[in-house]
Amino acid sequence: MPNSARPLAVCLLSGGMDSAVTLAEARRDGFDVHCLSFRYGQRHSCELQAAERVARALGAREQRVVEIDLRALGGSALTDAIDVPKDRDVTAPQRGVPPTYVPARNTVFLAVALGWAETLGARDLYIGVNQVDYSGYPDCRPEFLRAFESLAALATAAGTEQGVRYKVHAPLLELSKREIVLRAEALGVDLGLTHTCYDPLVRASEVLACGRCDACLLRLGGFAAAGRRDPLDYASVEGTRI
Amino acid sequence: MPNSARPLAVCLLSGGMDSAVTLAEARRDGFDVHCLSFRYGQRHSCELQAAERVARALGAREQRVVEIDLRALGGSALTDAIDVPKDRDVTAPQRGVPPTYVPARNTVFLAVALGWAETLGARDLYIGVNQVDYSGYPDCRPEFLRAFESLAALATAAGTEQGVRYKVHAPLLELSKREIVLRAEALGVDLGLTHTCYDPLVRASEVLACGRCDACLLRLGGFAAAGRRDPLDYASVEGTRI
Repeated sequence: MPNSARPLAVCLLSGGMDSAVTLAEARRDGFDVHCLSFRYGQRHSCELQAAERVARALGAREQRVVEIDLRALGGSALTDAIDVPKDRDVTAPQRGVPPTYVPARNTVFLAVALGWAETLGARDLYIGVNQVDYSGYPDCRPEFLRAFESLAALATAAGTEQGVRYKVHAPLLELSKREIVLRAEALGVDLGLTHTCYDPLVRASEVLACGRCDACLLRLGGFAAAGRRDPLDYASVEGTRI
Repeated sequence: MPNSARPLAVCLLSGGMDSAVTLAEARRDGFDVHCLSFRYGQRHSCELQAAERVARALGAREQRVVEIDLRALGGSALTDAIDVPKDRDVTAPQRGVPPTYVPARNTVFLAVALGWAETLGARDLYIGVNQVDYSGYPDCRPEFLRAFESLAALATAAGTEQGVRYKVHAPLLELSKREIVLRAEALGVDLGLTHTCYDPLVRASEVLACGRCDACLLRLGGFAAAGRRDPLDYASVEGTRI
C-alpha cells in the first residue's frame, strides 16, 4: 500500500537500466513515485513493457504512459527510417551529436513531467541521465537540468503563487555504466527486467537485444567493467551472432 | 511557392485569433513559417480545423499536428470533465490561476516547437501569448519566455555546438484584445477563419462559439472596444440565446 504521508515525486521511466536505477534511488530517498513513460514513436517500443515491469517491481505508486508522436517532426534514428549505428567504439570520445539524438526530447519529457508534478502537488522530478549517456546529447548535461529548474519556477502556477521550487534529481549524473550496474545490485534492482537496446529483434513474445548499437555496447561495457553478467538475452555479442 | 531563401520560423498555431495574428506577424517579419498545432485532448478540437484554414490562408509553408494526450495527466477544464467557467467578469483583475489552465502547456508546446526548429534549422519560434491571455496563466509571462530561450540554448545540439541562440517571439505580448483585432485588420487576417471558444456547440458541420466562456468574452470585448463586428457565429452573446 502506498504511504500517502511520503512526499510525491515524478520519475521519468523509459524501461532502461538507468531509469530503473533512478526510480530505485527515488524510492530510497523516501518518495512515493509516480512514473511517467512515453510512447513517442520510438522503434524500440518494447521498452514500454519493461517500464511497466520495472515500476511494479520497484513499488512505484503508479505508472502512466503519455502518447506523443514525435515522428511527425522527423530527425532521429530512434523514430525514423535512419539506420541505428552499429559496432561503434563507444569508449572513444564522441564527435558531435549522434544520429540517435531526438531533438529536444528531454526538454519535452521534463515539461510533461512538470505538468504532472504540478497537478499532483509534487515538487521533485527524477531523470536517469548520466555522463556516459551524454555522449554528445546536449540535454543530458547538468547545466541543462539547472536551466530547466529555473524555467519550472516561472512556468507553473505553484512556482508563481507559492514560490515552489521544483528540483530535477539526476542521481546517476556522475556515475559510469560500471557504477550504475553496481548501484543496481546494491539497491536490489533486477536489471533482467529492463530493456536498453535501440534496435531489438522481436520474435513472438521474445525480445533479443542487438548487442551492437551504442546503447547495448555501453550497457555490456558496464557489466564487463563491473565483473557481472548481463541477465538479458542478446542476438549478438561482440560481433558473434548466436 | 515558398521562397527557400527566407529564414525559417516555427509558429505555434492553435487556430485562435491570437495565434493567427502571430503567424501573420511572422510572415510580415519575412519568415517562411512552419506551423505547429497540437491535438492534446482539448475539448474544443475544432480549433484544429481553424488552424489548418488559417495556415493556408496566411501562406504558411506547412502545418503539422502533433498528438499528445495530456488527458492522461488530468488537471484542467480544457481537457477534463471539469466545467468551463461561464459569464465571468473577464475585465476584473484575476485572482489565481483559472481552471482552464493546462499545467505546463506552453512549456510542452515550446519544447516540441524547439525540437522541430532544431530539425529544420530554424532559430525563431513564434507564440501568440499576450498580457490579456495571461490572466493568471504563469506561462504567458515575458520572464517565462526569456527563461525558455536560456534553456533552448542548452537543450539543443545547435545551441551547444554552434552557439545558436533561439529566439521566442511573442509579438502580441503587450497588445490588448482591442489592439489585436485592429492588428489583424492591418495585416489582412480574416478572423472569421479562427476559432476561440473553449466550449463550442458543434452541430453537423456548423460550429457555434458559446459567447460565455472567458475566451469568448475576451474576444468579444476586443471587437467591441475596437468598434468592429466579430464575423463568427455565437450561440449566445451577452446572455441572449440566438
